Amino acid sequence: MYARLKKLGISAEKPSDLNAEDRRRFFRLNIDPYSITLNRVIDVNDRAIRNVVIGLGTKDDGRPRQTGFDITVASEVMAILALATSLKDLRARIGRMVIGTDRNRKPITAEDLGVAGAMTVLLKDALMPNLMQTLVGSPAFVHAGPFANIAHGNSSVVADMIGIKLASGGYLVTESGFGADCGMEKFFDIKCRVSGLIPNSVVIVASIRALKMHGGGPRVVAGIPLDPAYKQENLKLLEKGVANLEVNIKIARKFGIPVVVGVNKFNTDTDREITLVKEAAIAAGAEDAIVNEAWAKGAAGAAALAEAVVAACEKPNNFKFLYPLDMPIKDKIETIAREVYGADGVLFEAAAQAKLKLYTEVGYDKLAINMAKTHLSLSHDPNWKGVPKDYMLPVRDIRASVGAGFLYPLCGTMRTMPGLPSRPVFMNVDIDVETGKVLGLS
Amino acid sequence: MYARLKKLGISAEKPSDLNAEDRRRFFRLNIDPYSITLNRVIDVNDRAIRNVVIGLGTKDDGRPRQTGFDITVASEVMAILALATSLKDLRARIGRMVIGTDRNRKPITAEDLGVAGAMTVLLKDALMPNLMQTLVGSPAFVHAGPFANIAHGNSSVVADMIGIKLASGGYLVTESGFGADCGMEKFFDIKCRVSGLIPNSVVIVASIRALKMHGGGPRVVAGIPLDPAYKQENLKLLEKGVANLEVNIKIARKFGIPVVVGVNKFNTDTDREITLVKEAAIAAGAEDAIVNEAWAKGAAGAAALAEAVVAACEKPNNFKFLYPLDMPIKDKIETIAREVYGADGVLFEAAAQAKLKLYTEVGYDKLAINMAKTHLSLSHDPNWKGVPKDYMLPVRDIRASVGAGFLYPLCGTMRTMPGLPSRPVFMNVDIDVETGKVLGLS
Amino acid sequence: MYARLKKLGISAEKPSDLNAEDRRRFFRLNIDPYSITLNRVIDVNDRAIRNVVIGLGTKDDGRPRQTGFDITVASEVMAILALATSLKDLRARIGRMVIGTDRNRKPITAEDLGVAGAMTVLLKDALMPNLMQTLVGSPAFVHAGPFANIAHGNSSVVADMIGIKLASGGYLVTESGFGADCGMEKFFDIKCRVSGLIPNSVVIVASIRALKMHGGGPRVVAGIPLDPAYKQENLKLLEKGVANLEVNIKIARKFGIPVVVGVNKFNTDTDREITLVKEAAIAAGAEDAIVNEAWAKGAAGAAALAEAVVAACEKPNNFKFLYPLDMPIKDKIETIAREVYGADGVLFEAAAQAKLKLYTEVGYDKLAINMAKTHLSLSHDPNWKGVPKDYMLPVRDIRASVGAGFLYPLCGTMRTMPGLPSRPVFMNVDIDVETGKVLGLS
Amino acid sequence: MYARLKKLGISAEKPSDLNAEDRRRFFRLNIDPYSITLNRVIDVNDRAIRNVVIGLGTKDDGRPRQTGFDITVASEVMAILALATSLKDLRARIGRMVIGTDRNRKPITAEDLGVAGAMTVLLKDALMPNLMQTLVGSPAFVHAGPFANIAHGNSSVVADMIGIKLASGGYLVTESGFGADCGMEKFFDIKCRVSGLIPNSVVIVASIRALKMHGGGPRVVAGIPLDPAYKQENLKLLEKGVANLEVNIKIARKFGIPVVVGVNKFNTDTDREITLVKEAAIAAGAEDAIVNEAWAKGAAGAAALAEAVVAACEKPNNFKFLYPLDMPIKDKIETIAREVYGADGVLFEAAAQAKLKLYTEVGYDKLAINMAKTHLSLSHDPNWKGVPKDYMLPVRDIRASVGAGFLYPLCGTMRTMPGLPSRPVFMNVDIDVETGKVLGLS
Repeated sequence: MYARLKKLGISAEKPSDLNAEDRRRFFRLNIDPYSITLNRVIDVNDRAIRNVVIGLGTKDDGRPRQTGFDITVASEVMAILALATSLKDLRARIGRMVIGTDRNRKPITAEDLGVAGAMTVLLKDALMPNLMQTLVGSPAFVHAGPFANIAHGNSSVVADMIGIKLASGGYLVTESGFGADCGMEKFFDIKCRVSGLIPNSVVIVASIRALKMHGGGPRVVAGIPLDPAYKQENLKLLEKGVANLEVNIKIARKFGIPVVVGVNKFNTDTDREITLVKEAAIAAGAEDAIVNEAWAKGAAGAAALAEAVVAACEKPNNFKFLYPLDMPIKDKIETIAREVYGADGVLFEAAAQAKLKLYTEVGYDKLAINMAKTHLSLSHDPNWKGVPKDYMLPVRDIRASVGAGFLYPLCGTMRTMPGLPSRPVFMNVDIDVETGKVLGLS
Repeated sequence: MYARLKKLGISAEKPSDLNAEDRRRFFRLNIDPYSITLNRVIDVNDRAIRNVVIGLGTKDDGRPRQTGFDITVASEVMAILALATSLKDLRARIGRMVIGTDRNRKPITAEDLGVAGAMTVLLKDALMPNLMQTLVGSPAFVHAGPFANIAHGNSSVVADMIGIKLASGGYLVTESGFGADCGMEKFFDIKCRVSGLIPNSVVIVASIRALKMHGGGPRVVAGIPLDPAYKQENLKLLEKGVANLEVNIKIARKFGIPVVVGVNKFNTDTDREITLVKEAAIAAGAEDAIVNEAWAKGAAGAAALAEAVVAACEKPNNFKFLYPLDMPIKDKIETIAREVYGADGVLFEAAAQAKLKLYTEVGYDKLAINMAKTHLSLSHDPNWKGVPKDYMLPVRDIRASVGAGFLYPLCGTMRTMPGLPSRPVFMNVDIDVETGKVLGLS
Repeated sequence: MYARLKKLGISAEKPSDLNAEDRRRFFRLNIDPYSITLNRVIDVNDRAIRNVVIGLGTKDDGRPRQTGFDITVASEVMAILALATSLKDLRARIGRMVIGTDRNRKPITAEDLGVAGAMTVLLKDALMPNLMQTLVGSPAFVHAGPFANIAHGNSSVVADMIGIKLASGGYLVTESGFGADCGMEKFFDIKCRVSGLIPNSVVIVASIRALKMHGGGPRVVAGIPLDPAYKQENLKLLEKGVANLEVNIKIARKFGIPVVVGVNKFNTDTDREITLVKEAAIAAGAEDAIVNEAWAKGAAGAAALAEAVVAACEKPNNFKFLYPLDMPIKDKIETIAREVYGADGVLFEAAAQAKLKLYTEVGYDKLAINMAKTHLSLSHDPNWKGVPKDYMLPVRDIRASVGAGFLYPLCGTMRTMPGLPSRPVFMNVDIDVETGKVLGLS
Repeated sequence: MYARLKKLGISAEKPSDLNAEDRRRFFRLNIDPYSITLNRVIDVNDRAIRNVVIGLGTKDDGRPRQTGFDITVASEVMAILALATSLKDLRARIGRMVIGTDRNRKPITAEDLGVAGAMTVLLKDALMPNLMQTLVGSPAFVHAGPFANIAHGNSSVVADMIGIKLASGGYLVTESGFGADCGMEKFFDIKCRVSGLIPNSVVIVASIRALKMHGGGPRVVAGIPLDPAYKQENLKLLEKGVANLEVNIKIARKFGIPVVVGVNKFNTDTDREITLVKEAAIAAGAEDAIVNEAWAKGAAGAAALAEAVVAACEKPNNFKFLYPLDMPIKDKIETIAREVYGADGVLFEAAAQAKLKLYTEVGYDKLAINMAKTHLSLSHDPNWKGVPKDYMLPVRDIRASVGAGFLYPLCGTMRTMPGLPSRPVFMNVDIDVETGKVLGLS
């Protein structure tokens, strides 16, 4: 239980049994305050505490230090909760979390801090998914929320494991997050590797509007009326944008799983537009491409898509990971950049190069890779739509979520504490004090 | 619902209906950042964030400002939850919370910020107490925890109201916090005034050991073995300390309610010691003084005390508040200092004097008074045991919890974010990963 | 030269000769960062750096710490420069400067830091006063500027010593700063004790206008026209205010030196007003009271006053200090409060009481006392004019300038970094680029 | 004189004559605090104030803001002092200094702040160089010290102008700072453009040891004995390193001025080594290459070099700038990178690209370019010795010193506040208090 005691070669079983000298060794971790990478987290979108100086005041009020707060879902603890396969695995992963290093650059873990047990106790009920239901009454789990910005962004392994058991004879549908380059690659290379579960089919969701944007359509801004290009037939724009869908299909095919494209239909989409997308999808290797009218018609609107997925699930499945874990860190990152993002290679900046070396030395080189990258482009640049080419992927730095089990290279600046608009929607919310009914949510 | 709209004389009903000019007036509160008294709160004992500088970084990351975090229970919201008599009252109190002033020194409320509705929605379920049970199966509510350091420290009005309804024909027992000077005075003058409920009897709990300490016994320090003075008969020490109990009884008597003393028995207490306490209690005006052996014998051990309380409840009840709300702020504070704490008067420091003036001007002079004072002495100095005399009570500053409905004069430094020892007890906690059983709690 | 080497019992003569172990002992001072009382100083009125957090950034950029900047004259170094009697004394005083303590609460000096030598080298030319002249050509020294707020506010000992030598057969006139309670008491008890020089006569400067203000006249605010009360004859106001002058004379008399009052004449002062002041001054013990018309008539206007001073200098001189240095700290402070300020006694706040104990323990109890007090009242409260009575002097804290040789009790908040108005006068300053003449100074 | 008054179209001549409305316009600059690029400076190497948060405390203590302190020589004011050609020019340049922008991104100058006049007054005597002398009695000016890290690093224009006048019939020798790529290029393109003075000859100083380091010799570290490679004949190393000297000569030749190489002789240099350097220098286009033995033989040791310089001065002079000021910013930077540093081109990072655009818009595109670049390599990387090839020069950001008259692109991180070693040399310094002699300087 007290792994750190063994690590230090101390025979006592509990910290309370320690003699004075061992006590000092046990509790004096000699942490380098500049090495600490773990931020405090809070479940409020509070931009004003992104960057803070803490520990001001008197000697009783901690030590002054620059640090920051992240949103709770950006905590490594959330990624761990989503990847843990059991209570035992949860306890072990929390114990392995690295919060920084000591002054000799040796990693300090939650186990070293003596807090891994208590942390697991706090999470023991959170590990159990609540059974919920969809609008038409199908059972559903909504469980765990690892931040897609710097973690893998998929729902929990435990929920999938329970779901598959409960759905025996049926199908478990799970969401993998944004895009084949982003959510899906992580789903396969990180989550499937942990869970041992392999999908029978991949559904890629597309919309005519989104593809037009990838074809070079005008910028879409929240609050400003949509440009006509998106509401009228525009085969030229669509034709160019479909290239993005094709790449998504090809990425999925690399993992050896049958692909179905689901086209989320808007009422302004024309038949010719839909036909264009369907034909392109099949030409790119999709088993089928089906219009999904669930928004307009409910479950019935998705029936055709569901049948196509069932059919795809019967197809042969030659699943393989994109990279083996024992590949060097550098090669794993370059493989993803070339094979998935279509980059010519990777530019490792100085900080990233130092981490390649450090993490290999301390033995983190067998961990999976979790690219921290925008989901708005196949590349690292959110403005590069369609299929970016002829570029090197810049990796600014690499961080480690050792408990979660991955390294996350930073491709650009990833925000880990969201902000709010100057007039947040919750200002509309109120309560009817007589009935208790919540107002202003719609 | 949008009280601030009316306040500004704007006819629109919702912020979303505002024209440009009114929008600016509505949203530009012109808050003076130096006036903000509301800290962020977090439910972790984290001394390092007592004093922080926030808003560092770029223009997108808020504005730089010195502020601090308090423990959640120290939030005015907790005091409001504990005092609200209904959902409607909760909504209104939250709306009245003052977070600071604008640059013209006009108070800014949660209503002005447009967040009172959303805050109430977040608390609408928290307002409902959970029914729990004691070890012997009696129903019990544990509901709301206003920090006794700077709030009134009593459990919720709603729980008492429900409890009395459920206990029809029986008795509702509720705890009022430390001492007649501290928890009880606030219970009567703040909570009873809000709830309209008046106790039939007061139980003052005493222990031989505590009274010996008030008689001048050696300092008691956690972790160091108890001095023999507390474990052997020492009538001299006890006789001196009993003066403190007598004052507690007299304070309770001022409110016009019959008093019973319950003596929590330790196995080292001698009969002569118990007799001494009982006789002194009755001489000081208690209806009865009964040994409570609940620790050793469970519910049966408290039966005699319960019967004495039932008898006292039958006695006549001449309840009166210590002060009327329309007394000037200064007089209310001096009344408490003289009548309850035994001080000769009050020394208002400069900041406090300015607040006497300000709060009277802005109309907060009809609020109740909630003294922020140590519970370790009848005075403001935790080291003054027994019955302190011949002193002036220093009031450093006065703050306002307008939503909760009280002003709180600061008598000394009140800590609103606790710290943890260098080896917190949670370091003993772990989990049996096979059974899920929590270890290390005892 | 390296006093700290001897202190540590190390035989090496220079730090460069140290072996590894001694080197560690010599350079590891184990300073408690929270104990540091020495601020950085800068010779610019920059209010924005009164309170700062420094040491942010990376490990190469120092350690994070709350601190502040003071104005250069507020540095203990300035007080030392003003009190040093020789280069040797300067070197020794700088070496004794205490900057804080180590973690065992042992004082750390500039000598311990190894910087006292270099500091003295920087000041070796500054110790030499420049000979200047007055408008009528008399020789004058303007040398050293210890901040009257927290130091003694008198000009340098070295300048006085040189002046007396140069003036053999003549007279040396030196200024002692605000009031008999403030500048004069420090002049006698601190500066005279160091220099061994004793004045032959004290000149107290008064003006009808200032005395009227002490008599309860309307508030005088810079930039607002003076109230008529100050420009017209008002014997009533003056009669009340003269009490302040009488106290000043009596304070000076306590030191045993003949007193002359110089009345700085304004052209609105009436003869009856002047007569009133003169008679009161002589009744209170002044040798003489003479109108000074130097402003209107130059040197000739001050001739009568000069002659009265010469006459007073011939009178017998029974100089004595107000307190001996070996009186306990507490008694020294109370003596000044009672004998000079007319207080009933002293209220030592908690921090001050702790310092009484600490400074006695570490042997600073033989130092002189340098009250940090407003000069706008005989008391600690700038609003109490005339002769304040029936009050206790509050002492918030006590600090030590060990190198300068005094303790300074804080009576109120003393600002050590001035601010500037929103439109500082230097905004009027410019240069004629053809002639090099400075513009806008008048 | 009050340029800002004219800028605002106000007819009043002085701020003191303004009416209320104009006063508001004049003083309300609406500065964006995040735009401020001017740091405070202090003449102490104090790493702990590189990054600070200022303005903490109350409303009277400024506004909280992240900023930093630089060393005095890194101030733009120092660069201005070094480039000003007259008092009039000094006044004008100070007035043009840009300290940040208002909220509409319009530049705010020292003139706008109303402080340019007062600043010039403070510097009016500093503009006059002191006449000093060398060890052999030649007259010399040491005047102004613009930090080579982010400014041009040459001594003052005024000193050169006076020197040339005083030296009529003789020669003025001035130093241009590190290397032909760094100090010399700035000397020609910035300082000569301002002064209108053109050298008759360039002297490039080389040493066998430095050239060996450029040839790949072992790293040289202060405090560690020099590697034998530098003390014994090593023609191979030297032959490779000479390529660096050849590039320096060719850079100088591009400006059309005759070049002489001065070889600073160490006593370990061999004749064959010296011959190798001389022959290579002349082959690369130098007029001559002469051994300088001034270190060993004083002025006589430099006579031969002086004669060679005199001879070179007689040669024809076809001086031309490297770039015209009206070339676009981007082209000017690329010209320097390609022609001087031997780079293939320039990589402008995002911040730098934004500045190219901004500075062109606001009209700073006619300013000279002052590359902020390491002097330890012809490239931006201090570790790339010899003649770096096949690289793109990265430009991280571009800043503007509008008063000094240049833009400074940042190639790497430039430190603007030096640190001190853990045992600074001043700890050796002390004073003999009897004689006043300074000790420990050698």
